[in-house]
Amino acid sequence: MKSKKIINDVDNIVFDTVEGFVKAYKHKVIKLPNSNVIVRKNLEAGKVGVVIGNGSGHEPACIGFVGKNMLSANAYGGIFAAPGPDTLYDAIEAVDSGCGVCVLISNHAGDVINSKMAIDMAKDDDINCKGVILYDDIASSPKGQEEERRGTAGTLFSYKIVGAYAEEGHSLDKVVKMAEKVRDNTRTLAVATISGTSPITGYKMFEIEDDEIEIGMGVHGEAAAHTMKICTAKDIAEVMCEKLIEDKPYLEGDEITVLVNGCGQTTYMELLIFYNEVEKILNDKGIKVYKPAIGSFITTQEMGGIALAFCKLDDEMKKMWEKETDAPAFKI
Amino acid sequence: MKSKKIINDVDNIVFDTVEGFVKAYKHKVIKLPNSNVIVRKNLEAGKVGVVIGNGSGHEPACIGFVGKNMLSANAYGGIFAAPGPDTLYDAIEAVDSGCGVCVLISNHAGDVINSKMAIDMAKDDDINCKGVILYDDIASSPKGQEEERRGTAGTLFSYKIVGAYAEEGHSLDKVVKMAEKVRDNTRTLAVATISGTSPITGYKMFEIEDDEIEIGMGVHGEAAAHTMKICTAKDIAEVMCEKLIEDKPYLEGDEITVLVNGCGQTTYMELLIFYNEVEKILNDKGIKVYKPAIGSFITTQEMGGIALAFCKLDDEMKKMWEKETDAPAFKI
Repeated sequence: MKSKKIINDVDNIVFDTVEGFVKAYKHKVIKLPNSNVIVRKNLEAGKVGVVIGNGSGHEPACIGFVGKNMLSANAYGGIFAAPGPDTLYDAIEAVDSGCGVCVLISNHAGDVINSKMAIDMAKDDDINCKGVILYDDIASSPKGQEEERRGTAGTLFSYKIVGAYAEEGHSLDKVVKMAEKVRDNTRTLAVATISGTSPITGYKMFEIEDDEIEIGMGVHGEAAAHTMKICTAKDIAEVMCEKLIEDKPYLEGDEITVLVNGCGQTTYMELLIFYNEVEKILNDKGIKVYKPAIGSFITTQEMGGIALAFCKLDDEMKKMWEKETDAPAFKI
Repeated sequence: MKSKKIINDVDNIVFDTVEGFVKAYKHKVIKLPNSNVIVRKNLEAGKVGVVIGNGSGHEPACIGFVGKNMLSANAYGGIFAAPGPDTLYDAIEAVDSGCGVCVLISNHAGDVINSKMAIDMAKDDDINCKGVILYDDIASSPKGQEEERRGTAGTLFSYKIVGAYAEEGHSLDKVVKMAEKVRDNTRTLAVATISGTSPITGYKMFEIEDDEIEIGMGVHGEAAAHTMKICTAKDIAEVMCEKLIEDKPYLEGDEITVLVNGCGQTTYMELLIFYNEVEKILNDKGIKVYKPAIGSFITTQEMGGIALAFCKLDDEMKKMWEKETDAPAFKI
């Protein structure tokens, strides 16, 4: 069975999506006239810009995170395809007010190559521009090889914390350091229960047995590390928490924030049931949770599943995490 | 195939969901110790309380709408089952500070009976309490018999506008009048593409052909008015807008707000594509849209589909609609 998505022409999916977004949030954002870039309204001079490029199809990520105290701009590509260097350059140029721009880069080959090219183009034009590669998915490469890991749902912590930090008027070097700190304090692991369908072909993106869940699935349906039989939320939470804590010792006495990210069709009910188990496990280990984010923020179409991410916080990061943003799709 | 929901014991779904919710948002809400009621923290004296009861399984509705400038409390029942009169009474009592309580009632048999009993109990205890029955679903009863219609997604307008209005300190009579005005200005129509699964049985809630969509589905999978072949977002938007405009003349020069509510597994991408078409159609008719709400606010588990609701606004209602709320699951 092909998917029954409510769309128009397959070739115009991204165009139509963004046109709808810009109409709905015209009081908050604009689209650059000749480039696939969403820029927040009322950018203030004297502040470092924070930009990310990403493939479309993961909505609300990342267009929905453009706003005060979050992203200054988002350059978007085609469905599951990174935007080109020209588009990223346009985003950088649009938000530079002379203080420089920090480009957050989710670690996927296309994103990294194109972002680096865009940063070089910006430097050639005397824009002070630096990139920070974000990697958080512990399933995609073993401990000790963190830099090989994919960027997945935990990158959301960086969008929020780094965006709010830049808003405070810190220098580009300090903003880059904050981005590195958030990244280094973040770990993510995802499980998938049901495949999403490609908006282009209408067919399932991967196969999964009726009684199995996949652990370590990437945000485009990249192969999972292993499978397990479907079990309770409690059992899934235990497996995932253990792996995350093992990888990066979140220790007794630590304060962390938690992201329970729905991948698409997983209900808010399930996200809450799952979060309940996660908090119990963490509390049993003496780890305190500070204002978790629960929702379907970074999706893979109507995939079923949950990404669980942890980020260790200090007092400054806590303040940045909880600062209100008018970005249309983020609230804690 | 049974659903692969991430839950624990079926008998504890609602308990687990709410426990997770209260943990996640402990800085915003409490649960009454001995009753299934979520109450907002920091209720202010001197203000009318605004309460609704509803069945669970539609999350984030309505627990996620408890907050400043929105609901004072939510009494929740079992899955798709209205809370009993005792629970509703507890909600009313918890939020009454002597100024009275307005109970919003979504028009379903169980909700109406139980709410009326709870209001009578409150009056017996000298609480000034009044109910307003909300009906908005144009598919469930013809024009002229508005009071027979079901309460569906458009009730969201009342939660936000009435909640913010009560926060301003108006009398109970004025709050009730505002609730009636919002209801009378609201119309909703829903389409379903894919059945959700019952969290209790794990099986589909209704059958639907692979190439069809149902128009006029209720929030529990109640029988639709008719079916149509799957078509473009534009075509669906045209059919729905026409029916809504016909029913309640939203006229040239009017300003309305729009809700595009995802029923569960419909992606944010689709909601935006659909909204884009809706705004085009309305603009062509000279109807202006003010700050639409786009998201999966009131769901039927992982059902595929969209509810489209309109609410005609005056200046006062606009102010109430856009007032910021800290309710965990509402943002425009």
